[in-house]
Amino acid sequence: MSGLSKKQESLIKSLYTRHGRKKHNLCICEGLRCCYEVLNLNPQLVEIAVCSEDFDLSTLPAVASEINFIRVPQEKMKSFSSTVASQGVLVVAAKPEFSKSDDAPADPYIFVLDRVMDPGNFGTILRTAKSVGLTELWFTAGSVDAFNDKVIRSAMGAQFGMTLREFSDLDVLAEELRRFGYNRIFRTTPHEGESCFTAPDLFEKTAIIIGNEANGAAELDGSLSLTIPMPGNYESINAAQAATVILFEYVRRSEGGA
Amino acid sequence: MSGLSKKQESLIKSLYTRHGRKKHNLCICEGLRCCYEVLNLNPQLVEIAVCSEDFDLSTLPAVASEINFIRVPQEKMKSFSSTVASQGVLVVAAKPEFSKSDDAPADPYIFVLDRVMDPGNFGTILRTAKSVGLTELWFTAGSVDAFNDKVIRSAMGAQFGMTLREFSDLDVLAEELRRFGYNRIFRTTPHEGESCFTAPDLFEKTAIIIGNEANGAAELDGSLSLTIPMPGNYESINAAQAATVILFEYVRRSEGGA
Repeated sequence: MSGLSKKQESLIKSLYTRHGRKKHNLCICEGLRCCYEVLNLNPQLVEIAVCSEDFDLSTLPAVASEINFIRVPQEKMKSFSSTVASQGVLVVAAKPEFSKSDDAPADPYIFVLDRVMDPGNFGTILRTAKSVGLTELWFTAGSVDAFNDKVIRSAMGAQFGMTLREFSDLDVLAEELRRFGYNRIFRTTPHEGESCFTAPDLFEKTAIIIGNEANGAAELDGSLSLTIPMPGNYESINAAQAATVILFEYVRRSEGGA
Repeated sequence: MSGLSKKQESLIKSLYTRHGRKKHNLCICEGLRCCYEVLNLNPQLVEIAVCSEDFDLSTLPAVASEINFIRVPQEKMKSFSSTVASQGVLVVAAKPEFSKSDDAPADPYIFVLDRVMDPGNFGTILRTAKSVGLTELWFTAGSVDAFNDKVIRSAMGAQFGMTLREFSDLDVLAEELRRFGYNRIFRTTPHEGESCFTAPDLFEKTAIIIGNEANGAAELDGSLSLTIPMPGNYESINAAQAATVILFEYVRRSEGGA
């Protein structure tokens, strides 16, 4: 029980910035549910584990007993946390090594985010993609940092159990899709294109792109338009909601829902 | 151009608290898209309109020209805003008068939130419900205040174009549902019950309840269980994502998607 060193303390603080995460190749997972998932999915990535004096380690997976949790006063804990109510536990984790770019993806279709900027949207989409059984998420530079603490929290640590692939832009990403045989590429658009509920073979060696919150997905030669019917005639739905509709349409079709 | 009085200024600040909203029966709508929707849906509810000196009123609906926008320095604007980056416009609006409790709802099914506490979830669900054409949302006390500024922002002001009905608890709410002939009541649960993709007549004079983020919906006599299949074997999805799956399953069935 040596307490947290000054060096560890400033390392943790630096990981709340993009610069710090890049420099150290580490990130912060905060809160019970998020730490739970990281320990569950990939405990060997944990570099530093910190909890408040009264935190009950038995609420975490059993592997927690093999990790040296440094206990600190609650006030200290709160000084780190970006959430208003710190939940008394955080871990510093190495970013997972992604599969080599030559590994072919195993997923039937590839879900793609093009410059999704909101941490809550990006994280929620990751969590939801994992919940439907996808193993990968592809995205373009210009998206929010996938290892931002808010993204990790919204994703409940799904980052630690999925393969993420980042590309400089949609053209480069599309080239890679086609190399792996994902030839039909759909861009979601608000009011035109095929309905996601009736488009045939929507999830068979395809890719589906959700675009930036304000501007949608970038133009892409040879891509098809996909739309989510919206009878309320309302402006549009949130990017994470659009992603959810499409991800679960895949589940529905797989389950043979009528 | 009289500027903002001290009294107006302290009124605005008080509306960021639940107590203030209750006392004055007013609420705050912040940012361009949110103010746009309020002016679009219900401009007569606007009591005070404030924008920064350089804000371009032509980005709002034409009705904005009939409203006295008080221009204030950007610094003043920022001192109000709960968002990090104030978008230079906010309105104080009266809460809409909800339809009398004796009015029968027009919706084919009633969407219900039981103690959904997260402002982002509550607001996103409202926005999504509006986008699929529902005109009502029912909820229980213990939910977040539907006129909290964060809820309004997440909902993009959908509060001003829908009927909200609040009940002390699920039992009282269910009684009212049955009085109007909504007899089959579904509670969403993580791992049991009928699949939302195959349950017959799921949207015909029914009600569907989304529960509290941590504890789900309260027990309810005579209710049925409804579940969202999740092949990823992941803990669960976010409340707003669950709501989205179900709301769009209704759209899919209405569109005759196969």
